Amino acid sequence: GVGDIESLDYEIIENYAYREEQAQRGKYYTVYYVMVKWLFSLLIGIGTAYAAIFINLAVENFAGWKFSATFAIIQHSYIAGFIVYILINLALVFSSVFIVTQFAPAAAGSGIPEIKGYLNGVDTPGILLFRTLIGKIFGSIGSVGGGLALGKEGPLVHTGACIASLLGQGGSTKYHLSSRWLQVFKSDRDRRDLVTCGCAAGVAAAFRAPVGGVLFALEEVTSWWRSQLMWRVFFTSAVVAVVVRSAMGWCKSGNCGHFGSGGFIIWDISGGQEDYSFQELLPMAIIGVIGGLLGALFNQLTLYITNWRRTSLHKKGTRVKIIEACIISLITSIISFGLPLLRKCSPCPALDANSAIECPRPPGTYGNYVNFYCAKDEEYNDLATIFFNTQDDAIRNLFSAKTLHEYSAQSLLSFLVMFYTLAVVTFGTAVPAGQFVPGIMIGSTYGRLVGMFVVRFYKKLNVEEGTYALLGAASFLGGSMRMTVSLCVIMVEITNNLKLLPLIMLVLLISKAVGDAFNEGLYEVQARLKGIPLLESRPKQYMRKMTAREACRNKKVVYFPRVVKVADIVSVLRSNKHNGFPVVDDTQNGEQLVIGLILRGHLLVVLQSRIDFQHSPLPCNPSGGSVPIRHNFSEFAKPVSSKGMSVEDIHLSQDDLEMYIDLAPFLNPSPYIVPEDMSLAKVYNLFRQLGLRHMFVVPRPSRVIGLITRKDLLIEE
Amino acid sequence: GVGDIESLDYEIIENYAYREEQAQRGKYYTVYYVMVKWLFSLLIGIGTAYAAIFINLAVENFAGWKFSATFAIIQHSYIAGFIVYILINLALVFSSVFIVTQFAPAAAGSGIPEIKGYLNGVDTPGILLFRTLIGKIFGSIGSVGGGLALGKEGPLVHTGACIASLLGQGGSTKYHLSSRWLQVFKSDRDRRDLVTCGCAAGVAAAFRAPVGGVLFALEEVTSWWRSQLMWRVFFTSAVVAVVVRSAMGWCKSGNCGHFGSGGFIIWDISGGQEDYSFQELLPMAIIGVIGGLLGALFNQLTLYITNWRRTSLHKKGTRVKIIEACIISLITSIISFGLPLLRKCSPCPALDANSAIECPRPPGTYGNYVNFYCAKDEEYNDLATIFFNTQDDAIRNLFSAKTLHEYSAQSLLSFLVMFYTLAVVTFGTAVPAGQFVPGIMIGSTYGRLVGMFVVRFYKKLNVEEGTYALLGAASFLGGSMRMTVSLCVIMVEITNNLKLLPLIMLVLLISKAVGDAFNEGLYEVQARLKGIPLLESRPKQYMRKMTAREACRNKKVVYFPRVVKVADIVSVLRSNKHNGFPVVDDTQNGEQLVIGLILRGHLLVVLQSRIDFQHSPLPCNPSGGSVPIRHNFSEFAKPVSSKGMSVEDIHLSQDDLEMYIDLAPFLNPSPYIVPEDMSLAKVYNLFRQLGLRHMFVVPRPSRVIGLITRKDLLIEE
Ligand SMILES: Nc1ncnc2c1ncn2[C@@H]1O[C@H](COP(=O)(O)OP(=O)(O)OP(=O)(O)O)[C@@H](O)[C@H]1O
Ligand SMILES: Nc1ncnc2c1ncn2[C@@H]1O[C@H](COP(=O)(O)OP(=O)(O)OP(=O)(O)O)[C@@H](O)[C@H]1O
Ligand SMILES: [Mg+2]
Ligand SMILES: [Mg+2]
Repeated sequence: GVGDIESLDYEIIENYAYREEQAQRGKYYTVYYVMVKWLFSLLIGIGTAYAAIFINLAVENFAGWKFSATFAIIQHSYIAGFIVYILINLALVFSSVFIVTQFAPAAAGSGIPEIKGYLNGVDTPGILLFRTLIGKIFGSIGSVGGGLALGKEGPLVHTGACIASLLGQGGSTKYHLSSRWLQVFKSDRDRRDLVTCGCAAGVAAAFRAPVGGVLFALEEVTSWWRSQLMWRVFFTSAVVAVVVRSAMGWCKSGNCGHFGSGGFIIWDISGGQEDYSFQELLPMAIIGVIGGLLGALFNQLTLYITNWRRTSLHKKGTRVKIIEACIISLITSIISFGLPLLRKCSPCPALDANSAIECPRPPGTYGNYVNFYCAKDEEYNDLATIFFNTQDDAIRNLFSAKTLHEYSAQSLLSFLVMFYTLAVVTFGTAVPAGQFVPGIMIGSTYGRLVGMFVVRFYKKLNVEEGTYALLGAASFLGGSMRMTVSLCVIMVEITNNLKLLPLIMLVLLISKAVGDAFNEGLYEVQARLKGIPLLESRPKQYMRKMTAREACRNKKVVYFPRVVKVADIVSVLRSNKHNGFPVVDDTQNGEQLVIGLILRGHLLVVLQSRIDFQHSPLPCNPSGGSVPIRHNFSEFAKPVSSKGMSVEDIHLSQDDLEMYIDLAPFLNPSPYIVPEDMSLAKVYNLFRQLGLRHMFVVPRPSRVIGLITRKDLLIEE
Repeated sequence: GVGDIESLDYEIIENYAYREEQAQRGKYYTVYYVMVKWLFSLLIGIGTAYAAIFINLAVENFAGWKFSATFAIIQHSYIAGFIVYILINLALVFSSVFIVTQFAPAAAGSGIPEIKGYLNGVDTPGILLFRTLIGKIFGSIGSVGGGLALGKEGPLVHTGACIASLLGQGGSTKYHLSSRWLQVFKSDRDRRDLVTCGCAAGVAAAFRAPVGGVLFALEEVTSWWRSQLMWRVFFTSAVVAVVVRSAMGWCKSGNCGHFGSGGFIIWDISGGQEDYSFQELLPMAIIGVIGGLLGALFNQLTLYITNWRRTSLHKKGTRVKIIEACIISLITSIISFGLPLLRKCSPCPALDANSAIECPRPPGTYGNYVNFYCAKDEEYNDLATIFFNTQDDAIRNLFSAKTLHEYSAQSLLSFLVMFYTLAVVTFGTAVPAGQFVPGIMIGSTYGRLVGMFVVRFYKKLNVEEGTYALLGAASFLGGSMRMTVSLCVIMVEITNNLKLLPLIMLVLLISKAVGDAFNEGLYEVQARLKGIPLLESRPKQYMRKMTAREACRNKKVVYFPRVVKVADIVSVLRSNKHNGFPVVDDTQNGEQLVIGLILRGHLLVVLQSRIDFQHSPLPCNPSGGSVPIRHNFSEFAKPVSSKGMSVEDIHLSQDDLEMYIDLAPFLNPSPYIVPEDMSLAKVYNLFRQLGLRHMFVVPRPSRVIGLITRKDLLIEE
């Protein structure tokens, strides 16, 4: 719920401990720090690449084995094959939903909204834990291998982010897998950068699209971007590309079972359509519009269905979740096996002898023209070719060139309706689930449909249905996820065809524009539903007419004096849920001065350690001398993805409660301040652009000590 | 000089006129505004695409005609051909340098450092004027057509930016080409977005690389980025791609003279090397290192030479600049004609009959194996193939696959040395000049050299020298310009080969890292030299130990009271060059309050219009009622790329000087403030991230009126 979600602190708290740490740093600290950052980028790349390879290997082998077993059995009995098929799928899906519900509830879904939230500054509990990582990896093997209408690409982004975050905190403390040596990054700020690298690595590994990964991180998941980060994210993606490539090379020699033949998700259409004529722009624009409409509809339907799940179904406990997933698995199996059975087979086309394509495909191989429940040997079942197949192969078949008239409009249409429904229904079950591959399936189906009409209507020979399938895929993803540049690059990288770039751009622009007319992007909709309070990049229009003071709505500010009684701190912390408190001091002339901001988390650390308690209610150094610092900077570091301490965890004796604490060493002495009548739009920009958590609204200043301009910031040391 | 450069004001000045304007806006204003923004993106795309097509057409025709004329003449006499060649080059270069020096001095160079500066917040005078645009277009036709060692791609970025900015201000007022109808964008902020689109359009048009254009704008030129902008920039790039493609289609039918055959800058190597083995990674890494070293050296040498030009040569007037350019043209012509003469021709290799390549190439065509000063017919001159050729063709030849052993190491080496020297010497002459194509030339030369050694050393058949040439080109650009993702995508888009992506990434990473060890990127070095005060994205290390107060260095703040005598304003404005002044008011209780910031530019507008002068030294509405606003918001808009008014331009009578002005309606009531002891690093971040111009350093506040957290910013209307 919303209540659990806490903001992250990206600000550098310049308290005494921090300044001490800064002062103690040697000459080479910066060099060391930079090197460690690069080392981590390398490790994230390697880790994510291996996770992706593992998931792909496992999925391809499970699915490949499943289909070859089923095909072997249906040679004798379709009933027996059906039952085996259903049972294998059920077993896989059950294992997935079991792992997720029992062990890693945060691993359900794609995880991208949560990661987006994390990088926007809000921490969803449990999202970056070690158990989530494990649940995600094994769960997505089960759910994808089990043939559900979902993909493994979204989960891989989450996996990359988990790996990055775990590395960043030096392993998982809970499972005693941590290493002090690795604990270099103690601030939310550094972790944010690592997680960004992890996301890019995830996409790079999922699609073998290194540039697409960088752009995905930049366009879709991050809220802040620095040019140095670009450079590091790029490095991570390059590492992923190299590692994945060498693994692929190793698999080519047949070490990886079914994997070698199926391969990684790359649907090479470089042999396809070379050029396009201007008349084709109209059907392509129509594809864009369809993509926008169907994508927006998808977002809306999944919103309703997830909402319903959250508010009624999933409240009934994990057993309901498990049963639900199993039922959906059953339905999916029945439809994907049964629907092709109902379909009449078509006679094989006359393929030329040079072509690598055979009809029907030889038993035990992958490819087009599947012979399934056909009377004659020279026939194929076009619905089985896309439905009774792994998703990767189905997409490859839909994208394939030189297979004109392979599909009938009827088959494509019934597949579209069925798969769309399955994808909507499956969305939100308690298994790891990505929306990329289902989106590509849906899009390429209607794309190919349009392509069939174009072939018939324009009677041109150089039109390829596969090209339209690709454009359809781009349009659906654009209409649902509303990405542009990154999606464009990903599509180009996975299809290995640069020539279609302008067409993909066109289609994406149209589908995003159409989709935006109806609702927000899939991830934003889902984040909102999950109560992740994302700050958009722009303030709302009405904020221009409000002031900062109005935004605070005259709430009484809860603050602390500089030296405060322990009992008072405890009672204040118990009485509210605020996470930051101004600290006020009295000067000699009796005036009040705001001297800083103290965080709840830091107060709790101080309370628990007790070493700063003092008997006197006077500041430890009213004269302004140096304060002894009894804390290490790292003690204030908050553990990732955990709520940290709570006041209730702290038990103090009556004596302790009667003592005092001087807060000056622990507070952030220079929080950001805004004058009370600044417009809320400006406040919003400040807050959002700098990634803040707290901001003080203060009265107009009485004088200006100085002006800072560009010249003042360009001084040399 | 530095003195001329002024900051831009990206902040929204929420003065009375602005608030009035906001209040008057109808319901549909936002819709209208958004539509206009998209319309402008479209227009920028179309305009830049046509400018690029025009430049390319002109250059290809001039150069093509030059070479075919020369080749025709040298059939009879080499001396006569030499003279004609020199004279044509001289004429073209002279026209270029003449246009630039006499008419548009700001058009010299690539313009990218200046645009980078503009988007970072500093305005170099004249950089976005109409005359600069014209000078850039015609100047770069002359300089590139004249065979100098420079490219037309950098200037195209500047051209795109100029087109965007001129559209944004509704045309050029000076040349009466403006239209009030188009003057929608009045703030520096909106113009910044347009100029970003223009830059992307420039790269997209120059390289036919739409995605590369978006990334170039993002990585290299802009300092602020918003996700909505990504979307619009992407649209502009797509428009460019479509327009350029249709123009190319039109040219294919032979309407464009020499252009049709030479074509746009696209060096298709998709027929080249398909795969690479791990042993090849070592020579590729070596290419990266060489690129880093040569690139850093290039930056350093051009720094010295530009510095020398600025401080001694160019001070002597425009005539010196013209003579200089002509001398360089002469030297370039002599070397590019003469050096191949000294080279012995090689016998033609045995090419198979199917290959499209002929040796020697037939007269009057483009391609490899140029027969130049050869004794026999069956011979070619390898140095002439790259030197005595247009740069586009030379690069195509260097990248070409299936032409193993075409070049001798000696030729490549002498070309490398010569061309590198020419590129360094040419840099900084008073003509429009880009560094992309020369960089590709240099890089592909040593890349091919390394490739030759690899072919010899590894004795593998599937190694292509052309692939190494491409990697060399990437490495030199990476080592000099220090871009990563954008360069990577541009290289992939211009060579139409996605397979090499991981290799290009690897090489770029190495070359950038090596280059960074020596100096900054080319554009940063040049911006520094030109006195463009770029704010980097990160504060310097020592800023962590300084406070805001220290940065102001105890300067006395020049401020105004709320109601101020006209004579006082004039004398204050005359006595300093500050551009912003705090305004201070007295409350009833005799306390002082800072009520805002007034800009020099706005003061001058008020002074000139005189309608706000009043006789009484009292505020017009001490009770707080509404003030009559006699100004339109657009009156305060500053014209682009001009210094605006100066105090000296304002002539007031003695009576006027005795009157008063109430500044309250004109000031920015809520400038950004920072407490005096905030560390300069935080101040820097605030200033840089929000793109500010002025910031007030104020004493610690006496109380906190309220706290703003994420929740306060998520309120719904
Ligand atoms: N010290 C305080 N005194 C008074 N009001 C406060 C104080 N801190 C926060 N608030 C107000 O309380 C509301 C929310 O409280 P809270 O501190 O939980 O912030 P939040 O938005 O939930 O962020 P976080 O994730 O950091 O908890 C806000 O409207 C804020 O204005
Ligand atoms: N009103 C002022 N009173 C006192 N000092 C000022 C004032 N305005 C600016 N300064 C100081 O003068 C110096 C530079 O002055 P200037 O106003 O020209 O700014 P700048 O950095 O050149 O930016 P711009 O491009 O806006 O002119 C800075 O060090 C700044 O602190
Ligand atoms: Mg809270
Ligand atoms: Mg100045």
